[in-house]
Amino acid sequence: MSENKKQSRTVSVIGLGQMGTRLAQAFLAAGYRTTGWNRSAEKTDALVAQGALGAATVADAVAASTLVVVRLPDYGIVRSLLDPVAGSLRGRVLVNLTSGTTEEAGRMADWAAGYGAAYLDGAAMSGTRLVGRPEALFVFSGSPAAFAEHRTVLTSLGNAVHLGADPALAALYDTALFGLAWGALAGFYHAVALVGAEGVDPTAFATVATGHMPFVTSLMADHARQIEDGRYPDDDGTVRVHAAAMQHLLDTSAAQGVGTDVPELVKALLDRAAGAGFGGDGIASVVETIRKGASNV
Amino acid sequence: MSENKKQSRTVSVIGLGQMGTRLAQAFLAAGYRTTGWNRSAEKTDALVAQGALGAATVADAVAASTLVVVRLPDYGIVRSLLDPVAGSLRGRVLVNLTSGTTEEAGRMADWAAGYGAAYLDGAAMSGTRLVGRPEALFVFSGSPAAFAEHRTVLTSLGNAVHLGADPALAALYDTALFGLAWGALAGFYHAVALVGAEGVDPTAFATVATGHMPFVTSLMADHARQIEDGRYPDDDGTVRVHAAAMQHLLDTSAAQGVGTDVPELVKALLDRAAGAGFGGDGIASVVETIRKGASNV
Ligand SMILES: NC(=O)c1ccc[n+]([C@@H]2O[C@H](COP(=O)([O-])OP(=O)(O)OC[C@H]3O[C@@H](n4cnc5c(N)ncnc54)[C@H](OP(=O)(O)O)[C@@H]3O)[C@@H](O)[C@H]2O)c1
Ligand SMILES: NC(=O)c1ccc[n+]([C@@H]2O[C@H](COP(=O)([O-])OP(=O)(O)OC[C@H]3O[C@@H](n4cnc5c(N)ncnc54)[C@H](OP(=O)(O)O)[C@@H]3O)[C@@H](O)[C@H]2O)c1
Repeated sequence: MSENKKQSRTVSVIGLGQMGTRLAQAFLAAGYRTTGWNRSAEKTDALVAQGALGAATVADAVAASTLVVVRLPDYGIVRSLLDPVAGSLRGRVLVNLTSGTTEEAGRMADWAAGYGAAYLDGAAMSGTRLVGRPEALFVFSGSPAAFAEHRTVLTSLGNAVHLGADPALAALYDTALFGLAWGALAGFYHAVALVGAEGVDPTAFATVATGHMPFVTSLMADHARQIEDGRYPDDDGTVRVHAAAMQHLLDTSAAQGVGTDVPELVKALLDRAAGAGFGGDGIASVVETIRKGASNV
Repeated sequence: MSENKKQSRTVSVIGLGQMGTRLAQAFLAAGYRTTGWNRSAEKTDALVAQGALGAATVADAVAASTLVVVRLPDYGIVRSLLDPVAGSLRGRVLVNLTSGTTEEAGRMADWAAGYGAAYLDGAAMSGTRLVGRPEALFVFSGSPAAFAEHRTVLTSLGNAVHLGADPALAALYDTALFGLAWGALAGFYHAVALVGAEGVDPTAFATVATGHMPFVTSLMADHARQIEDGRYPDDDGTVRVHAAAMQHLLDTSAAQGVGTDVPELVKALLDRAAGAGFGGDGIASVVETIRKGASNV
């Protein structure tokens, strides 16, 4: 029990690149006894200078803690480093924050299970700068028991969310949230270009735009409920009305000589929804035409 | 002075459709003596039953208040209703929340000036449901003096922001913010479709996604500064790295049979930025390829 307590105050980080170093620093800042390993020793040394313990080998890093966090460029490298020490993973929790596919996450979970280790796949969603702050989103999937046991230490990284027992979920959300972020950013860059053509400064526009995003975000929550119900009330305007307004944005962009890709994409989505019979429905019905088999709608 | 005080506690609303009624209700709720006019009398009657004064004619509505707020389907209808009473607008403030183009806003401002009325063009950015709540964004442009004088009453509608003296700014922001909102929504619908193909519920995903949006919003503020500086540090990853990740989203979407329009658009933007020499720069450089004359980049 006291051994267990002690173990839960320790964590090892394998791979001390930009992100790995930030992870280790967040654990240190939260008071965990943190052991780091990196291929080139100077990054380990830099972390040791900040109060961490340095591991000379991957085996030492694994031996130092029940909780072993890995962040490397790809799953192949993870396997190449962990295969030789797999026997010592038994009873430990492997948390893999390396970016990869859902298939890679599933295979890694099976591999870990084969050596008696609990496995959590994870993704850092908010870049490196916010690590350690509550707004930094980290998603995890895999062993619910392992997450429950190490939730506190993982929360020292930021907002640690467990998505479910399927280890593939973190990679799935990683990919989906990346697309969501890019939709918003593409819309933002287009808007900045458009108002810029009329002499409006990017920062002046951003002040208003960022103030508008909580409303846009609230639409997502509302529309998720509509999509789940499969019913699309027109509370936020119909597909037809939005298509007309999008045509206006398209025309305005063209008249300004600004790229029209973003409004063209949205217009196409709306037109497709209208063509599928959703013209008089709420805009969330657009999801129906993006879904699997949508080409048959 | 006391006449002035009394005037500033009154407001007239012309056009009591869905939005006009909500505007009038918000003024009433904030304690303003509110006069309403609508083409079909039953909507006026409904508002009177809530404590408003009913105007039998547009002329009566204009006469009742220094501040005259108009919300109608288009600028042509606004002109057709106000032309006959234009002479009585002298010394009043006309606030036009009708959706229109920047050109229409400019012409309307000139028209109002010709009759000695101060003019504010405006746009309601947050739908009808939130009207009266501080998170409902209303943008205004035109006479700074008129906005300063009536800021308090306009703030009873929500977050009332004055964008500048050019009356076209509200319509410009309206269009640009509409595109921004749709970029985010398109990204969201795509993400919902993608995770849905793996059996994840829209609302489960939305809980995580909405928690991620404040971070995405913070990127907009950061990137606006970069765009203003014309320097694109790679703090949030390079164009090249994001293009590779977007290719992964594209492949995943295709493998799931989910529509690929959204990732294709973003991939194209990133590829164009890379082709223009921004591959090693931060992602905000994408704006350079959307801007006016971008085809020559
Ligand atoms: N930065 C981002 O914005 C971002 C976002 C999403 C995903 N990712 C992915 O996550 C990966 C890693 O994250 P990061 O940002 O921390 O990367 P990073 O700063 O580039 O660091 C890479 C780390 O991996 C180590 N490494 C590379 N090859 C290795 C090998 N064969 N054996 C052992 N160690 C090896 C490096 O060790 P040395 O110090 O010895 O070179 C270094 O510690 C990136 O490569 C990227 O694919 C990055
Ligand atoms: N709802 C949205 O999501 C949304 C978003 C952005 C922009 N808009 C635009 O804003 C417009 C008006 O807003 P709303 O939502 O309040 O619309 P609404 O509920 O459709 O009401 C339209 C109002 O305009 C009046 N009207 C129509 N034609 C008229 C005419 N020739 N003369 C006098 N009054 C006339 C109607 O009077 P009656 O009661 O006598 O018919 C009614 O009061 C919409 O048509 C739309 O183009 C709407």
